[in-house]
Amino acid sequence: MNKKRLENFSDGVIAILMTVLVMSLKAPIDYDTNDYSFVELLRLYIPQLIPYAVSFLVISVQLINHHVLLGKMHEVDNTFVWLNLLFLFSLSLIVFPTALFGYHQNKEASTTLLILAFLFKGFVYRLVKYYVVLKSNLYRRDSDSCNSRRNIFINAVIDPLIEVIALIFIQYNYMISLGIIFIMTLRSISPSKRV
Amino acid sequence: MNKKRLENFSDGVIAILMTVLVMSLKAPIDYDTNDYSFVELLRLYIPQLIPYAVSFLVISVQLINHHVLLGKMHEVDNTFVWLNLLFLFSLSLIVFPTALFGYHQNKEASTTLLILAFLFKGFVYRLVKYYVVLKSNLYRRDSDSCNSRRNIFINAVIDPLIEVIALIFIQYNYMISLGIIFIMTLRSISPSKRV
Amino acid sequence: MNKKRLENFSDGVIAILMTVLVMSLKAPIDYDTNDYSFVELLRLYIPQLIPYAVSFLVISVQLINHHVLLGKMHEVDNTFVWLNLLFLFSLSLIVFPTALFGYHQNKEASTTLLILAFLFKGFVYRLVKYYVVLKSNLYRRDSDSCNSRRNIFINAVIDPLIEVIALIFIQYNYMISLGIIFIMTLRSISPSKRV
Amino acid sequence: MNKKRLENFSDGVIAILMTVLVMSLKAPIDYDTNDYSFVELLRLYIPQLIPYAVSFLVISVQLINHHVLLGKMHEVDNTFVWLNLLFLFSLSLIVFPTALFGYHQNKEASTTLLILAFLFKGFVYRLVKYYVVLKSNLYRRDSDSCNSRRNIFINAVIDPLIEVIALIFIQYNYMISLGIIFIMTLRSISPSKRV
Repeated sequence: MNKKRLENFSDGVIAILMTVLVMSLKAPIDYDTNDYSFVELLRLYIPQLIPYAVSFLVISVQLINHHVLLGKMHEVDNTFVWLNLLFLFSLSLIVFPTALFGYHQNKEASTTLLILAFLFKGFVYRLVKYYVVLKSNLYRRDSDSCNSRRNIFINAVIDPLIEVIALIFIQYNYMISLGIIFIMTLRSISPSKRV
Repeated sequence: MNKKRLENFSDGVIAILMTVLVMSLKAPIDYDTNDYSFVELLRLYIPQLIPYAVSFLVISVQLINHHVLLGKMHEVDNTFVWLNLLFLFSLSLIVFPTALFGYHQNKEASTTLLILAFLFKGFVYRLVKYYVVLKSNLYRRDSDSCNSRRNIFINAVIDPLIEVIALIFIQYNYMISLGIIFIMTLRSISPSKRV
Repeated sequence: MNKKRLENFSDGVIAILMTVLVMSLKAPIDYDTNDYSFVELLRLYIPQLIPYAVSFLVISVQLINHHVLLGKMHEVDNTFVWLNLLFLFSLSLIVFPTALFGYHQNKEASTTLLILAFLFKGFVYRLVKYYVVLKSNLYRRDSDSCNSRRNIFINAVIDPLIEVIALIFIQYNYMISLGIIFIMTLRSISPSKRV
Repeated sequence: MNKKRLENFSDGVIAILMTVLVMSLKAPIDYDTNDYSFVELLRLYIPQLIPYAVSFLVISVQLINHHVLLGKMHEVDNTFVWLNLLFLFSLSLIVFPTALFGYHQNKEASTTLLILAFLFKGFVYRLVKYYVVLKSNLYRRDSDSCNSRRNIFINAVIDPLIEVIALIFIQYNYMISLGIIFIMTLRSISPSKRV
């Protein structure tokens, strides 16, 4: 499988994952039997919209990261293809916990599962980067290579740490946890900070 | 991320959104326990089909607009990539209110949420265009640039105004509101009217 | 929008429609509360599988037709882009009636709606072809052009006729109707018969 | 339809199938009415995750196989296009049995249907390969051609045999059957073993 092909396929999967997320938004169970005013509907919609937006943002960042990473590779090998499939698998695990927020109960359990999915995805992405940057010959060695090695190790400590802190805050209020993840992810939007 | 790549990715997301809409069509809840003649089924199907067609048309117009806009850009920058992701996010919010019409109640609340989603999408699209045409150097300056500046401001006033009028009509009959949006969107189909 | 772009977008939508169909297959409603042997499951699965296969085949034929048609065009214009979107819309209407077969009742009403969706899709496809072959300058005039004009008119009479006959047979047995559509569609698989 | 086009279309369908699988993960039916701790949620989630991972892996292997096969072909003919559509149809049949694991009962019936879907997919893939390697002129004849002929016949006996053994083990424990399929599929990940 050549690089171009893998790029297209990964883009396709990520595009579908981002879109499938939208199906996590669910109507109230009694929407067909009870009268709902627009304000009542909105009161049930917003708490679903926030986790949806967080997951959409997290996958968007992964999309950009994935593009930047592949942009710096000159070819792909078989190990990378399988690590990439593992990475797409780990991204797909974000969909189900997000969908759980369509239920109006057990938000703490849903948040825990969602943040664990983020942790797993982060772990797999670091594995992919570790392989590409340090082990393989797939990475174009240029000036920022040294810099990005440092970044790998910083991210490998700080990001999971923040996610574990978010996990702890669930017992107080799951919205705080989602807020922590959201702000942490927004950091990555700045153009130059991450590979 | 280069322009070609972003184009493909956005096309993919928009194609999926248009298709995912089709899952908003839902069978009557008692379809497995009651007898339905074809005419009875049709009587429940048509009121779902209309909002589906409206949303399909709105997203189609956005697809064309997006293509025309990107066709006039010579490159993309990081800000545009993120604005584009925000635009895709705003389009995705059309899916859920459309799906609410699968329920045979609360059509007023569903219509309100749908038109608000259209308003939000219009706002984000105008933000993207504002950035591209006025702030960045991404836009190819040619003869119609001045013309398109005027159009931006006309659309920025008239389209939201019509959508607000449609919002007001919901309390009389939500079908009138959908009709207003439909006709307003049909306007955009003429080849030369919009960027 | 250039031809290449439109091709990719249409391929994307058709690929998603074919795949979304698979979600029409539904578990028995009491699958979580009753014991099912494999044979009992199969007895409920097969009658769902047949309409799924018919719809998959019909959309496959449209995919091939669409490729052949675009392969003979040298460019696209704005009217074609919108006719093509209308065609994709008509294809998307096949998904819902197919999904109705996931319910174990009212198969006659479901079949009627499915065949009407086929009729509508056929009508729109003929409209697209009529525009491309007879009205526009988009079609490459070569030896088979005359032949394909004749084919258009033959198909415009015979195909809808067979579909109307299938509609009539629903009152005897909906499986016969699906069988008629299936065999009629199989005809199109032979390499040279259709544009 | 040219080869490049068919490649993109098949990639698209396979990407969607892999992603649609994720919707097989389902919340407990009483998630909206009962209290769930994270550990209780996890206890219901893991038995769904395992079949999801197995199906994801099986489709991944088919993706790679499909790429390698097409990479060795210099062109496609009409028969191949239709065999390829049949192959995509057979892959799509994996989605429904996987989704059945979202129910917390009848795991034996679900496993049986899943493994039969694997058997059917294997049969169709062998049919495609048989046509490409032995019957058509589409395959580039090079050094490994002879080797791959031997592999076709080995796989045509061993793989179905293992799947039949897995079918038999369902009556003892369906998890053993899924484990057998998982290990058998992992074999294919090694770079050089399969076309």
